[in-house]
Amino acid sequence: MSEVTVTLPDGSTLEMDEGASVEDVAFEIGPGLGRDTVAGVVDGELVDKHAPIEADVDVEIVTESADEYLDVLRHSAAHVFAQALERLYPEAKLTIGPWTDDGFYYDIAGVDLDEDDLEAIEAEAHDIIEADLDIERDMVPREDAFDRYEDNRFKREILDDEAAGEDPVQFYQQGEFYDLCQGPHVESTGEIGGFSLLEISGAYWRGEEDNEMLTRVYGTAFPSEDDLEEYLEQRRKAQERDHRKIGQEMDLFSIDETTGPGLPLYHPNGKTILNELSDYVAGLNRQNDYREVETPHVFRTELWKKSGHYENYVDDMFLLDVNDEEYGLKPMNCPGHATIFDQGQWSYRDLPVRYFEDGKVYRKEQRGELSGLSRVWSFTIDDGHLFVRPDQIEDEVEAIIDIILDILDTFQLDYTVQFATRPDKSVGSDEIWERAESQLESVLEGADMEYVVEDGDGAFYGPKIDFAFEDALGRDWDGPTVQLDFNMPERFDLTYVGEDNEEHRPVMIHRALYGSYERFFMVLTEHYNGKFPTWLAPEQVRILPISDDHIPYAEEIKRELEDYRVTIEERSWTVKKKIRQAHEDLVPYMLILGDDEESEGTISVRDRKEREANDVDPTAFRAHLDDEVGAQRTEPDFLDD
Amino acid sequence: MSEVTVTLPDGSTLEMDEGASVEDVAFEIGPGLGRDTVAGVVDGELVDKHAPIEADVDVEIVTESADEYLDVLRHSAAHVFAQALERLYPEAKLTIGPWTDDGFYYDIAGVDLDEDDLEAIEAEAHDIIEADLDIERDMVPREDAFDRYEDNRFKREILDDEAAGEDPVQFYQQGEFYDLCQGPHVESTGEIGGFSLLEISGAYWRGEEDNEMLTRVYGTAFPSEDDLEEYLEQRRKAQERDHRKIGQEMDLFSIDETTGPGLPLYHPNGKTILNELSDYVAGLNRQNDYREVETPHVFRTELWKKSGHYENYVDDMFLLDVNDEEYGLKPMNCPGHATIFDQGQWSYRDLPVRYFEDGKVYRKEQRGELSGLSRVWSFTIDDGHLFVRPDQIEDEVEAIIDIILDILDTFQLDYTVQFATRPDKSVGSDEIWERAESQLESVLEGADMEYVVEDGDGAFYGPKIDFAFEDALGRDWDGPTVQLDFNMPERFDLTYVGEDNEEHRPVMIHRALYGSYERFFMVLTEHYNGKFPTWLAPEQVRILPISDDHIPYAEEIKRELEDYRVTIEERSWTVKKKIRQAHEDLVPYMLILGDDEESEGTISVRDRKEREANDVDPTAFRAHLDDEVGAQRTEPDFLDD
Repeated sequence: MSEVTVTLPDGSTLEMDEGASVEDVAFEIGPGLGRDTVAGVVDGELVDKHAPIEADVDVEIVTESADEYLDVLRHSAAHVFAQALERLYPEAKLTIGPWTDDGFYYDIAGVDLDEDDLEAIEAEAHDIIEADLDIERDMVPREDAFDRYEDNRFKREILDDEAAGEDPVQFYQQGEFYDLCQGPHVESTGEIGGFSLLEISGAYWRGEEDNEMLTRVYGTAFPSEDDLEEYLEQRRKAQERDHRKIGQEMDLFSIDETTGPGLPLYHPNGKTILNELSDYVAGLNRQNDYREVETPHVFRTELWKKSGHYENYVDDMFLLDVNDEEYGLKPMNCPGHATIFDQGQWSYRDLPVRYFEDGKVYRKEQRGELSGLSRVWSFTIDDGHLFVRPDQIEDEVEAIIDIILDILDTFQLDYTVQFATRPDKSVGSDEIWERAESQLESVLEGADMEYVVEDGDGAFYGPKIDFAFEDALGRDWDGPTVQLDFNMPERFDLTYVGEDNEEHRPVMIHRALYGSYERFFMVLTEHYNGKFPTWLAPEQVRILPISDDHIPYAEEIKRELEDYRVTIEERSWTVKKKIRQAHEDLVPYMLILGDDEESEGTISVRDRKEREANDVDPTAFRAHLDDEVGAQRTEPDFLDD
Repeated sequence: MSEVTVTLPDGSTLEMDEGASVEDVAFEIGPGLGRDTVAGVVDGELVDKHAPIEADVDVEIVTESADEYLDVLRHSAAHVFAQALERLYPEAKLTIGPWTDDGFYYDIAGVDLDEDDLEAIEAEAHDIIEADLDIERDMVPREDAFDRYEDNRFKREILDDEAAGEDPVQFYQQGEFYDLCQGPHVESTGEIGGFSLLEISGAYWRGEEDNEMLTRVYGTAFPSEDDLEEYLEQRRKAQERDHRKIGQEMDLFSIDETTGPGLPLYHPNGKTILNELSDYVAGLNRQNDYREVETPHVFRTELWKKSGHYENYVDDMFLLDVNDEEYGLKPMNCPGHATIFDQGQWSYRDLPVRYFEDGKVYRKEQRGELSGLSRVWSFTIDDGHLFVRPDQIEDEVEAIIDIILDILDTFQLDYTVQFATRPDKSVGSDEIWERAESQLESVLEGADMEYVVEDGDGAFYGPKIDFAFEDALGRDWDGPTVQLDFNMPERFDLTYVGEDNEEHRPVMIHRALYGSYERFFMVLTEHYNGKFPTWLAPEQVRILPISDDHIPYAEEIKRELEDYRVTIEERSWTVKKKIRQAHEDLVPYMLILGDDEESEGTISVRDRKEREANDVDPTAFRAHLDDEVGAQRTEPDFLDD
């Protein structure tokens, strides 16, 4: 029998007999590890612990403490679901049931389920877990496998395609239940501590729209009931503050099947917030001597060939034919800005030249991947491009980082920072890379913040600093970025005349402060849970006249608050109902006006935190608004002690 | 011989023998008119006065006083050019030589001309005019015509296509020159009082890019030398203030072959002006309770089918295929706004609902028709859509007209107004049309302005009021518009709940205040000849320190002018040169700072009208700027008496 070399994560190697299993490897390392082995990762692929090793491979042992354990557990949970389903719906036909990041799903045919049916299935699944059935690998002769699936064309298709030529084929069995399956699985159903079915949706067989529509049941599982409860609680919170839900409630935006998926329409309330966000960064840009430009959304693909985007991006681009010439919607703003720079004559004294644009870009995501504002087809980047001399990199990046920190502070967002350095494949000389990286590092050191170095993770065209927002639920979202680029100036043959009267190549810096407006809008909506700071709130103040008689006084007060977004509640409701509605609408301030207020020339102020004050001088309130909004504070604080 | 009925412009009729000519008709009306006849318009087509009348037709007699006379004269001038060309370049092959709005052109092959060659040809043409050669119609047997053009495949192609089956075919002859030609022409070359060749360009045979490139010579002609001189003077002025020339000189925008024709890129200076224009109308919109929305640039064509634009606009639309579904760049903003309205629940109390958006639209013009910012592929409309109750039309249109008049006043633009009423084919009941037209009329009567009623010229979906800008050179450009629409609310099934608790159909009003930003930008650039009012000027103030020593004081003054667009001229030039450059750059105000100013804490102010004042208090200057810019005055007037 010949030997194979197994390389372990620490780099050490073991010689094993060909055909030895992952579990054998674990026992070879130590009997304790052998006993704890759940599965293995062989050359990056999660496999059953009994899988034979036939060649030289990398092996990682998966025990209950490994990250992969959860995947294995959830894979078994999918089988538990399928077993429960078959007990209650013997006519159900199983197709595929993989684990996911959050749990698992199983696609099934031949049954017509709705959310109400999940309870009974879940109860049955709990019985199966309670029974702690052994889960066993079972190698079945190919012919028998086809017999088992005589009535299930989906599994037969899998036998023909994914399992083509395998004989025997691998099944897993628990009690009366069996499933054609690559594994791996936990030892017994009892290992599943927490199990829950979540929702039902539809899915095409093999994801293709021409195929049959199947029923997809989503569920999740955890080693313990406590872990499950924690997850479910977090999921409830996430759904509660889902920007799609809040977006509809607050009438911020919509995405419509007729107008097109992934193409958001901003309603007046959403556009108000977008405008405030845009004005805020435009102001910061102007203070920092950026100048605004505007470039088309459509370009000849010649430009994308020149910039190199065509080569790498063409599959994600929206292309169109105009008089037999190929055009494309822009996936990036940089080539447009480089074109504008290229049309000027620049001396070393003119640099840095800084352009900015709220530039809409278009990237073709799969329809199935589109989701609210977080994954769209068209999004707007608050894009900036700087053309700088190599000796200016440090100052410019420092200034950009300052702006970014300012913004993060304004929105009180948590974030992480990554510094990504030169990858194996890159353009630009050693000298410029070293100089640039040391300049970036010095900026990062100077700025008082934590960051992680991702060695070799930079773009081929230059090193970069990426910020990621951490949202209230601990999820990360791409945020601000600063990227050096030694490539595009070459491709566009950009030059400036140096002090030496020679032509030199500028370095280009790409930077975005929010990243994409759409994603930032989403992060903020969920971060504030719809309770936008007063400076962003679509409706900042609502005046609630106690009766129709007080409307003229309400209008007078509204005029005193000119330039703010103030409405008057004119519906003939009780004040109580008016207040309740204003709270539901998350309006930061309510002004309640009745006889007392009118005769005294005062207002009663209530905020969305349910605090109130009477006898307030309208001028004082306006002065406070000027201050609160001007300083972009996150909470209405007129009524703070 | 049978008779035909000829209907004259005044509606009267004449019975003529079949085969009678236009000239015969004129003599029948009166011998004076007969003698003055140059040509005729038969059923709308300009024809030779000898053309026989074969059926019942409408006839207009063209004399020297008719508008069409200029066309006829210029057609003859094209022949004079061709005769002169053949005398100097016997190898030249003529193709086609029509009249145009401004003069004529002739496309020729077989010669290689440049602008320098035009002088000699023009001199020869003047000799031909001097010789006062008779221009005579000559009917030539078809076979002989082919013999004449043995060496000219272009004319043979015309004989085969346009003149297919004609025998004899019509030629015109003057001296030794002849040309296959539909006519008509003046009597003799001497009638041409003013003749000038203008420029050379290339043109494809029959306008198709696959065909041979020909040489196109442009010229013009007038009955008198004075008319010609006036035209040439106006043309010089137009070229002088051509927005493409000014746009390049002031670095406002560019259109680039690589990025795509008809797709302007706005440079910082141009974007500054655009932003001011946009902010100005956004302010007016908000004051008038419009709310801003933002809609995608790409939509599924489903939307355009729903709106009806697909049917009528598809050939002008930029279409693209996304996952086998058809999408289109928007040619209009209205369906997007209707979609947003449609997603709300509206009561009669909520109306009018007013949306606005600087919405970019895309319309496919022929490449050859693209021209600077006046004809582009993508342009931005300052688009507004109102959803109103029928009883609100008058108030709303009145408010819109007020805004438009405000704007026209701000820019001091000349304009004309047209009121276009119900066409033969239209949607909507008699009642709503009558009510709407009478409301519009009452607004027009109420607004103190002249307007022309264009009966039956309204859109099929509703009546409209169109404004046209008249530029400094007397040319008209589409401007603001107000259009009622009874159709789109039907197509989108838009409703509101009335006081009667029933569903009702709102009326939609489309309105634009500038029209297209691109065209308005062009009109303004030429209107001001690059001397933009201070509030629009990309650079409002330039500080000219007398020497480098005065730069710190310059920076101090710049800080005092915070929020204005102020630069410091730091190049080591003489003050004289700095002033000259600032004048060339059309900067409204220059502040000259030397020892005197610094020690006194004053500034010297110079404006672009070359007026100056010393010992100016910077605070007073800033106060004036606040006033001048705030009031959007058209000229820098700090130094007015």
